[in-house]
Formats: sequence, structure tokens, C-alpha cells
Amino acid sequence: MRAVRREPTARVPVWLMRQAGRYMAEYRDVRKNIGFVELCKTPRLAADVMLTAVDKLGVDAAIIFSDILLVLEPMGMSLTFSAGDGPVLEHPLRTPSDVERITELADVSPLQFVFDVVTETRCGLDQRLPLIGFSGAPFTLAGYMIEGGGSNQFLETKRFMYRYPDAWEKLMGKLTNSLARYLRGQVDAGAQVVQIFDSWVGCLSCGDYSRYVLPATKQLIAQLRDIPTIYFGTGNPELLTLMKQAGSSVIGVDWRIDIAAACERLGNDVAIQGNLDPAILLSEPEIVRNKTLNILRKINGRDGYIFNLGHGILPQTPVENVVTLVETVHGYNVRS
Amino acid sequence: MRAVRREPTARVPVWLMRQAGRYMAEYRDVRKNIGFVELCKTPRLAADVMLTAVDKLGVDAAIIFSDILLVLEPMGMSLTFSAGDGPVLEHPLRTPSDVERITELADVSPLQFVFDVVTETRCGLDQRLPLIGFSGAPFTLAGYMIEGGGSNQFLETKRFMYRYPDAWEKLMGKLTNSLARYLRGQVDAGAQVVQIFDSWVGCLSCGDYSRYVLPATKQLIAQLRDIPTIYFGTGNPELLTLMKQAGSSVIGVDWRIDIAAACERLGNDVAIQGNLDPAILLSEPEIVRNKTLNILRKINGRDGYIFNLGHGILPQTPVENVVTLVETVHGYNVRS
Repeated sequence: MRAVRREPTARVPVWLMRQAGRYMAEYRDVRKNIGFVELCKTPRLAADVMLTAVDKLGVDAAIIFSDILLVLEPMGMSLTFSAGDGPVLEHPLRTPSDVERITELADVSPLQFVFDVVTETRCGLDQRLPLIGFSGAPFTLAGYMIEGGGSNQFLETKRFMYRYPDAWEKLMGKLTNSLARYLRGQVDAGAQVVQIFDSWVGCLSCGDYSRYVLPATKQLIAQLRDIPTIYFGTGNPELLTLMKQAGSSVIGVDWRIDIAAACERLGNDVAIQGNLDPAILLSEPEIVRNKTLNILRKINGRDGYIFNLGHGILPQTPVENVVTLVETVHGYNVRS
Repeated sequence: MRAVRREPTARVPVWLMRQAGRYMAEYRDVRKNIGFVELCKTPRLAADVMLTAVDKLGVDAAIIFSDILLVLEPMGMSLTFSAGDGPVLEHPLRTPSDVERITELADVSPLQFVFDVVTETRCGLDQRLPLIGFSGAPFTLAGYMIEGGGSNQFLETKRFMYRYPDAWEKLMGKLTNSLARYLRGQVDAGAQVVQIFDSWVGCLSCGDYSRYVLPATKQLIAQLRDIPTIYFGTGNPELLTLMKQAGSSVIGVDWRIDIAAACERLGNDVAIQGNLDPAILLSEPEIVRNKTLNILRKINGRDGYIFNLGHGILPQTPVENVVTLVETVHGYNVRS
């Protein structure tokens, strides 16, 4: 939390996106008996999965075990996760009238199970470690709603944005207000900071981001003004200075930009999180160590830096490489 | 060609990646009777397909109708294109010893059919229009060889790079020397300029690009020193200044960077090509016109600029939007 506030820390704090997941044998064991969505909806188990990972890795923060798409069910989308194929959202939004059937969440009680995951995880967590809540960002969630699932290029989303700017704005507004209540609910349930995942925003040009995405994102973060926020995007480093305008406490950066350049571009008035390429964790401990040290040296003791990957841990990652990463960060003397 | 040399032009020249392709009814008609690879290997037809597109759109350059992967067949890879699923390369390279079975092309005569496409297209083309030859870049081709086809993340490629740096260098060397001969052959057959497609390079960090990709790419372009070259990459604008170091005459940029920022970052000693998001062509003529004018205004009469997309035309693109784009570029008065 000191790093989030850009205060000096004795060592660089580290946590890893998707630190509890398929790469870990303990997680695969749990999943033998329960589906992914069911696990997310079983607070005791979801908390256990994360607490086990935090314990095993020795990271400096937990994040709730959940999924960015769950908020879309009470908003009116029908969601299924098929093994291997990823999420499917039925009846994707393709016309302005489709937006009418989306409900803005005035009441977030249908997401009580997420708040329960927050509380369960918080209760089981070392008091010194912060718990991170999260949601998808308005753009990334709108993208799933319009595509009907994952996508490489988000062409339907772009087409919708260009052709129906008013309906797009309406959709982003409904998402923004719902997400603000949802994230506040997570903080009320025990989270210290929230991360907003704009995982697919990198498909956009700067002009499109400024016009179609920044206003809603800024509004979301403004509604959370009193809450520490991490805004994470991937895929286009050119967006970083625009993303900063959204006003979060921390900006999450992927590996496409050199961390020294990211620090320079973003300036000293925002904290930074990232940016090791998760593919490096597929190699060997010695390579992981070198690439991790590379980043730490470039950070050069900057206040307001949180070590993380540039995206989530990949399922095929050997656990020992992740342990090596955490040990390397913790063994690094910030003031040397 | 004047724009390639950064000399003043009366109007902004324009051509479009994948300007002959599935979005065009004439192309779909041709493909009713012939497979994709067979079409590439039938010079008369391949030339016709491109000449028809150039004629219909009124663009200022032709590019040979071919595929970046064809060069890999005589190098020892077995290649098939399955409808819908994209290319498949059998026996992908996964260990250093796999690189041994790859042949460096001392003799490019197995690719004579490509040179014949060049000559046929050149003969049918208006003398004032340049013909562009092309190949994949060493990294992008190595990526296909290691993944065994297309990929979103190029994880096997990165793992290979990190674990087997010597074998990687050897593979890049074989590709570089083969591609230099191949591209020179295209120029000898009648091309005026060659484009090197590094379509997937954007998955890399700046550090990895500098270490694993830039040296080979630089060497390739050095071997073509007397030939005008366009080096095109997509997916990570942070790489642009490094890509410039490879030494091409023109840098192709995607839509992720604002064109004004690209001009500033790349400086005045290299020509620039790009950068409209091809997704914009899925919208409506009025939107296409506005977004095209936006770019032209930002270019602001810069010498050494070629209008293009940031990636190839998408199959579902309405032809009238492409025509609108070309008309808008040609109607724009550079010196206004």
C-alpha cells in the first residue's frame, strides 16, 4: 500500500496476475471436483485457492479469486464457460436496441458471493498483506458483450463504436455506474485497493481511446475517488499517457514498453506496476532471475513501483520459475 | 517511388495491404476454381488478380500476389493451407537440432514461380506505377516455423529464443541469407521496391527485439543496400525507433500510434507508410472519409509519406469503403 501511495518501501513489493491458477498443482486438484464458475461462487474455496497461492509464493498481496465477466450476469447477459474454448456470452449486443436490454446495477446484491470471497480472503490473510479487489474496465467488458466472447481483433466492437456512438456511450455509462458500485462493494467487504483490467484496450488507436474509452474510464475512477485504484491495460504502450489521464493511483504496464521508458513517460505522480513478459516464466530459473534483475535495476529505487508481470501467469508455467521470480525481487536491495 | 525517397509528391500516394483479396467479388470468383497456393503458383492468374484490384481501386502501387510462407517450402518446411484454419507447418522447430534440417537457400530457383508473378504483374501494370515485391521478416518467419502455424502469443518462439540463443541465431542467419537472395530475385524480375513483413514482431519487448531480432533484420536490409525497402511491423509502437535502426527506406506503422507521434519519433530521415485501422473500413463511407482526412491533416504535407492501412484489408470489408478511402487520399490537396 505504501508503493500504491508512492511512499518509500524497504523492498520492492511483488504480486502476480493470475498467481492462483492452472499452473499450480494445488489449484488443479481443487478444480478436479468443481467447475470454474462454481468455484468463483463458493467463497470458502475461492478464498482458499488464493491463500494457498500467496502462502506458497510469498508474494506481498492477494487478489480475490474471481472473473471479470461475472458482473455481466446480473446486467442481463447469459454467460457460460466451456472448457478450452473460453467464455461465451449469448445474444451479443450488435444494435443500439440491444443496449436497452442491459440493466445498470442499482443494486449489487446479486454479486454478494463476490463480496463474500473478499471477506473470506481478507479473514484468512496475514494482516500485513493488502487484498486487491477487481473488475473489468468498461471497454473490455463492452468488448465481450458485443463480440459474445473473446476476440483477437474486436472488430464488431469497433464497428459498433463507429456506427452507433450514442448507443456506445449509453452502454459505457451503464457499465461505469455498475462497476463503481461493484468495486465499492468489494472495498466495503474488505479489499484495500481495486484493479481495473482493460485487458483488450491495446487494439485501439489513441484517437479512438480518447474519444470512446477515456471518458467512461475517467468517470469510473472519479466515482471511486477515495479508493486506491490500479488501472491495467495491455497491447499498446502508446495509450499509457492517455490511460494516466483516467486518474488511477497506479498504472499497470505490459512488457511492450521498456520499464525505464514507462517511468519517464508516466512521470513521478503515479505509481507503476509491471512489466515482465509472462513468457519468460516458461524458460529457466537463471533466465527468469536475469530478466527480473534487469527490470529492478532500471527501476532504480523509484518510489511507487510494484513488481508484477505484464499479463497473467500462463497455465504451462513451471512453479519453480515463479518462486525464483519472487525470491529475486525480495532479495534485491532497493537502496544498493 | 518519390515518396520512398522522401522527395515531394503532387499528391499523397496510396496503396493498401491485401488490396487484392477475399473482400473483392472478382477475387472470390477466381478462387471458386483454384486453391490459394495454386493461385500463388500460377503467375498469369496471380498477376491478373492484382492488376484487377489496382484497376478497380485506382491505387498508386501494386504488390505481387503471393504469401510470406512460400519461401519456407524450399527451406525444408512442409506447408499446407487449410480453409478457415490458416497455414499449418508440419514438424515445427522445437530444439537446436531441428534447425539443422533447415536449408539456407543458396539457389532461389525453386521460387521461380514468384519471380514469374513479379514479371507478369510488371508487364501488365501501368508503367508509372511501381511494383512492390515482398517477403516475411526473419522473426515472423522463424515464429511460424517454431509454432507450426499462426499464434497469438508466440510462446514457443519466445521459449526457443530464451533457451537456445545460439540455435536461434543460426536460424535467423539462414533466413536472412535466404530472404536477401529471394528479395533480390524479385527485384531482378521487375519489382521496384520490396516490403519486409514483420507482422508478429509486436509480441516482443524492446529488449528482446534488440537482442534477438534487430541484428538479423539489419543484416538483411544491409544485403539489400541498393534496393528501396519498406519494413513493416505491427503490434508494438515502442519498437519503431529500434526498427528504424534496421535501416530500411520506409517504415510501415500500424494504427496503435498516432501518425503525428510516429512522424516525430521516427524523424525526417526515413519515409513512413500507414496507418489507418483496417477496422474503420468495416463502418461507413462518411466515417472512412473523416478518419482518412484526420491522418492526412496530421501528415501535413510531410515529404516521404505513403498512405496505407495499419494491417491488411479484412475479408468482410465493403468495397465501396475502400474506394472512398482511395478517392479521399487522391482528392486531398497536399499543399493546402
